[in-house]
Amino acid sequence: MVRIGIIGLGNMGRSHSRNIFAGKIPNGKLAAVCDNDPKKLEWLKEMGHEEVKTFTDAEEMYKSGEIDLVLIAVPHYFHPPLAILAFSYGLNVLSEKPAGAYAKQVREMNEASEKTDKVFGLMFNQRTNPVYRKLRQLIQNGELGKIKRITWIITDWYRTQVYHDSGAWRSMWKTEGGGLLINQCPHQIDLWQWLFGMPKRIKAFAGFGKYRNIEVEDEVTAYMEYENGAIGTFISSTTEAPGTNRLEIACEMGNLIIENNEITFKRMTVPEPEFNANATIGFQTPDVWECKIPPLRGAENSQHVGILNNVIDAIEKGTPLLAKGTEGINGVKIANAIHLSAWTDKWVDLDTMDEDEYYNMLQEKIKNSTYVKNLNEQVNDTTGTY
Amino acid sequence: MVRIGIIGLGNMGRSHSRNIFAGKIPNGKLAAVCDNDPKKLEWLKEMGHEEVKTFTDAEEMYKSGEIDLVLIAVPHYFHPPLAILAFSYGLNVLSEKPAGAYAKQVREMNEASEKTDKVFGLMFNQRTNPVYRKLRQLIQNGELGKIKRITWIITDWYRTQVYHDSGAWRSMWKTEGGGLLINQCPHQIDLWQWLFGMPKRIKAFAGFGKYRNIEVEDEVTAYMEYENGAIGTFISSTTEAPGTNRLEIACEMGNLIIENNEITFKRMTVPEPEFNANATIGFQTPDVWECKIPPLRGAENSQHVGILNNVIDAIEKGTPLLAKGTEGINGVKIANAIHLSAWTDKWVDLDTMDEDEYYNMLQEKIKNSTYVKNLNEQVNDTTGTY
Repeated sequence: MVRIGIIGLGNMGRSHSRNIFAGKIPNGKLAAVCDNDPKKLEWLKEMGHEEVKTFTDAEEMYKSGEIDLVLIAVPHYFHPPLAILAFSYGLNVLSEKPAGAYAKQVREMNEASEKTDKVFGLMFNQRTNPVYRKLRQLIQNGELGKIKRITWIITDWYRTQVYHDSGAWRSMWKTEGGGLLINQCPHQIDLWQWLFGMPKRIKAFAGFGKYRNIEVEDEVTAYMEYENGAIGTFISSTTEAPGTNRLEIACEMGNLIIENNEITFKRMTVPEPEFNANATIGFQTPDVWECKIPPLRGAENSQHVGILNNVIDAIEKGTPLLAKGTEGINGVKIANAIHLSAWTDKWVDLDTMDEDEYYNMLQEKIKNSTYVKNLNEQVNDTTGTY
Repeated sequence: MVRIGIIGLGNMGRSHSRNIFAGKIPNGKLAAVCDNDPKKLEWLKEMGHEEVKTFTDAEEMYKSGEIDLVLIAVPHYFHPPLAILAFSYGLNVLSEKPAGAYAKQVREMNEASEKTDKVFGLMFNQRTNPVYRKLRQLIQNGELGKIKRITWIITDWYRTQVYHDSGAWRSMWKTEGGGLLINQCPHQIDLWQWLFGMPKRIKAFAGFGKYRNIEVEDEVTAYMEYENGAIGTFISSTTEAPGTNRLEIACEMGNLIIENNEITFKRMTVPEPEFNANATIGFQTPDVWECKIPPLRGAENSQHVGILNNVIDAIEKGTPLLAKGTEGINGVKIANAIHLSAWTDKWVDLDTMDEDEYYNMLQEKIKNSTYVKNLNEQVNDTTGTY
């Protein structure tokens, strides 16, 4: 039985606690909770769980000897320092996404994790989705052939002004470090690098506070180029309703689309380069079979519960992680590169991106901020929102 | 009865001739045909239409007194000079798309047309599609509210190497002036400006001869910004099979998608800004009704035949044109701006775009060309390809 300590009793911390209380984590128990706001800890009483130890200081919880695994569910900037501190106390770590707000601090976290033998996972719950797992299998098995173009329209992260106003830390450079790239889309950005690998360079465009009273981005279009010539466009917004979630891959074997959580593969019977080489008539087009491809067989769409159980299995049995903590830097680098490109109106090369330049520009944004938040604190019900 | 003269008996000239011979143009007759290759004129005999006068020189046909309307169906560079010459002989003009290869020459054509009272139309046959006509009506009636984002993935213009090799003029800067922007996509670029108006500025990315042995573009991604804040992404390729044709519009009233020639409008019951202003809970989302919207009532998808009949009605009865010739410059400017942005890796502002700079860069491409064409001449059957 792994003893879990959660840091942060906001939206996500409460959601994870509920899953544990509901018996969905058979080999884990909620041993302790930490929140620097003592009032939030009263929620445990309301839930009838006074047996859970409470702390208002993370280090006190870390050194209490009460927990084996810390689940970090606080604003993004605090993920790396809290993980680094946890490693120093020999704890296993599962952090909410994103890995951090900027690559420089995430790199330090990764370096700390590599000095321990403890488990380090990230809450990339969408990696459990059998539809994306199937796509990853198709790519890795060569079913698609070479990928030529990726277009992901992911605009169904609808957020109202009330949402932004509901937390003091939300939607500000100083306390959140970004908008949709850092809060809503880390899932899709992680899936992007998990499925397709890291692009070589990015040119991006963003709207900051375009449709909401916030200072961070609520609209993004990013164009990416890969070393092998593949291109990608990532289009996102948090102010479209109902919005769209449509991933399209143009590849040598045809066009594959994921929409409404279904895979449709418009598949040629021969690879396109071969068809082209053998064509003899000007307007010739290939036969295409429209295939509905089922999700990964036997895989459960277990989301947050699946990731937490997987981390516990990794601790107890050495099971491989679905989402390794050290991989989180990839998505953070992509998000940082998109910011940097939008700010400077220049290409950003992922390999040579200057992490200090990004950090310094972010500090400038924080220093020069004139944003005034109309705070209206709420703990939100997150059911069905991630 | 309007007497039509066609210039160019290639793919399109033959297709238009067949439509006239088949009686689809009730108030038009094919009076004359011109092609500078006398062999191509023999096709009229094969078709049993020896009554049609033939010419190998356009000006001879223009001054023959045999025709009232010239239908120009030759490579793009020749559209403006042949139209200008036709106006000088007092003829009505219908030109194949695009209006020309570069804005400078199209501007001269427009100036010449404005000095005459003759009819000047362009073969933007996709404007007859009742689906796009309905969309235009919805936009103009304010059904969508303000448009926030347009994304058009138009990659179903599949072309093999054989196609590029089938005409001596194809796919070279010198003789075609561009690739998919100038040959396949002028339809979608025209619809774009017809539906949404002209963007303020464009940043574009293109692959030139990326997947085919050609020197012009076979892959394009263009990001556009509008004066009112709307953004657009235009994604095109001629080497994807089967490819995609999906137009999505995110607007204040919801998301509208045209795919498979069907309009789906995921429509909110109140405009998004109003919903946002009245929301009281963090993750609140609006009610959405998924509406299937029928094509424009009573409108026929008459394509090339419809445009030709419309031009004849304009000549005989003053009927308004579906596609006015002078509007063609808009699409040419967008195509030129995309080239220019991709070549220079800079933003291009549509209002202040330097048409001479574009022309000079195009001449550089022509001068520095090392492209060797593997010519394999064919007249292609174009049925179902435009």
